[in-house]
Amino acid sequence: MDRFQADILRTFTRKAFQQVGVPEQDAKSIAELMIVADLQGSDGHGIFRLPQYIRRIQAGGVNPRPAIRVERSRAAMALVNGDNGMGHLAMKFAAELAIEKARAAGSAWVGVRWSNHAGPASLYASMPMREGMIGMYFAVGNANHLPPWGGVEMLLSTNPIAVAIPAGAEPPIVLDMATTVAAFGKVKTRAQRGETLPEGWMVDREGRALTDPKRMHEGFLLPIGGYKGYGMALVFGILAGTLNNATMGREVIDFNADDATPTNTGQAILAIDVSAFDELAAFKERIDALSRDIRGSERMKGFERIFLPGEQSQQRFSERSKLGIALPAPLLSSLNEMGTGLGIGKLA
Amino acid sequence: MDRFQADILRTFTRKAFQQVGVPEQDAKSIAELMIVADLQGSDGHGIFRLPQYIRRIQAGGVNPRPAIRVERSRAAMALVNGDNGMGHLAMKFAAELAIEKARAAGSAWVGVRWSNHAGPASLYASMPMREGMIGMYFAVGNANHLPPWGGVEMLLSTNPIAVAIPAGAEPPIVLDMATTVAAFGKVKTRAQRGETLPEGWMVDREGRALTDPKRMHEGFLLPIGGYKGYGMALVFGILAGTLNNATMGREVIDFNADDATPTNTGQAILAIDVSAFDELAAFKERIDALSRDIRGSERMKGFERIFLPGEQSQQRFSERSKLGIALPAPLLSSLNEMGTGLGIGKLA
Repeated sequence: MDRFQADILRTFTRKAFQQVGVPEQDAKSIAELMIVADLQGSDGHGIFRLPQYIRRIQAGGVNPRPAIRVERSRAAMALVNGDNGMGHLAMKFAAELAIEKARAAGSAWVGVRWSNHAGPASLYASMPMREGMIGMYFAVGNANHLPPWGGVEMLLSTNPIAVAIPAGAEPPIVLDMATTVAAFGKVKTRAQRGETLPEGWMVDREGRALTDPKRMHEGFLLPIGGYKGYGMALVFGILAGTLNNATMGREVIDFNADDATPTNTGQAILAIDVSAFDELAAFKERIDALSRDIRGSERMKGFERIFLPGEQSQQRFSERSKLGIALPAPLLSSLNEMGTGLGIGKLA
Repeated sequence: MDRFQADILRTFTRKAFQQVGVPEQDAKSIAELMIVADLQGSDGHGIFRLPQYIRRIQAGGVNPRPAIRVERSRAAMALVNGDNGMGHLAMKFAAELAIEKARAAGSAWVGVRWSNHAGPASLYASMPMREGMIGMYFAVGNANHLPPWGGVEMLLSTNPIAVAIPAGAEPPIVLDMATTVAAFGKVKTRAQRGETLPEGWMVDREGRALTDPKRMHEGFLLPIGGYKGYGMALVFGILAGTLNNATMGREVIDFNADDATPTNTGQAILAIDVSAFDELAAFKERIDALSRDIRGSERMKGFERIFLPGEQSQQRFSERSKLGIALPAPLLSSLNEMGTGLGIGKLA
């Protein structure tokens, strides 16, 4: 696999968005967030998505010049309308607003509608975290891959949750998880790499294990903890979608199959200002102590190391910042084809 | 098994608390919440806990006459000190405060410290729900049964989450789940009933399935979704415990083994006022439509019905409100022994 420095991919991504009418500053913001996804190892959410994002803008499914606005607001809440622009822009706007409100009110919940796919959940939960706050993010996924427990109709998406917690000397704790055993992006990445799926990721309509990613459209993802994961996908989807009058359940547009219909994607972010509860430094010390207790605790045979949530992503981030980001051949050729079509040239 | 009407159990519970110095009104509030747990089928969290609660008050581990107070407050947050009283009282106080603040600010997060075990998570998430709000509850469990992923030291509890969402004609959606495959209360209930544990609930220190509940202290609970459930137990514990300067991780007191040490239990509740986002009636209609879509969707072979989260608890609530609450013989005899000791007589 060829490796590319983050800068190269960022510039390529920014240019691609500019070519389809996204203003420079917005294109820059989107590219910045997308390449963070690649750096931290969210391979299904970074530049992998670029050809699809561009295609949707070209097909009229996404608005390249949104007027993002606050529709409703109180001291500790807001409802943001993303005007069908790129989700990264709507969510960046929402996270910044939540931080500002939480700084005064102690906590704030901001919901978003008429947004779009925004990449990995951790990107947005981490925004309050960098301001000494706890960030929590919820989203409705952009394709339904999960039936209710006991059902076969895919009425739910892999609706993720992310929680980001600031630390002191230790790395921050950043949980970012789909409510399914695997996210569909991971299935697609495996398919593109020609790898098989582990048992437990997907089943077919009879409930039998599905391991061939070429058959991914014949089955569905499994929720974590059985009915519990189904319950989480449902309530997180309600928090991010239904509450904001965004699509949820049967209304969700499959953005893999449909480039032209606006998705009305819903997302939500909660910011909790740690300093309203305690001295931030004291809190960070407690998080550091907890992290060290966990990392240093006795291991089960066969495990070389105990990780804190987000630790591996942070290691990957440092590693890839130095060594570059590896792009599998099929992805590279689809990016090059897109680049040629847009008149911005090839990556290599 | 003998069945008892809720009223009988409520009165017995109230009297027991009064006998150990809890003021009548508080004893009434605790009994009310505890018997709701029994009615809805949270068998490990209702009257099953009464002898232990009484023992802890008698041993000086819990304060029968707490002065619950607000330590810190902003428009959308508060930190409540439960003064080591019964957790039910501290959490009722916190939920009412969150509702009041959310009504003005749109959302509010209230953390609690110096609290105690408060019964099932759904009790508190449902308080905002009954006011037309979405309620979310987090707690640090009162005994560590979960090692970090890849470890064998039980540094984490089954830290639960509950989310309660108001509906219109349909039943409200109430998710209440431990971050482990089973809660430890369920293991204890099975042990008391002489039943074995399903595979997947617990493993021993070598990672082998543990199905004999008599051996429960030789192993630990499994998190849902492997490392994901570990991550949730950790971050929910930080939200409920570490943020509030309550115990978390290694500091957690095992309240099954220790009656005398105050637990400094941490909990947290979030209330989101739906009417800040949309007309409450319109939101409820969307929830009803979503519930009906899910319930009416195509079933997998072998499933007779698709349930919404909380639906089975609500059915059990109606059923047990009519037929009474069945108490297994060992529980009944321990309650009678306690009642005799306290001078309030036996249940039967």
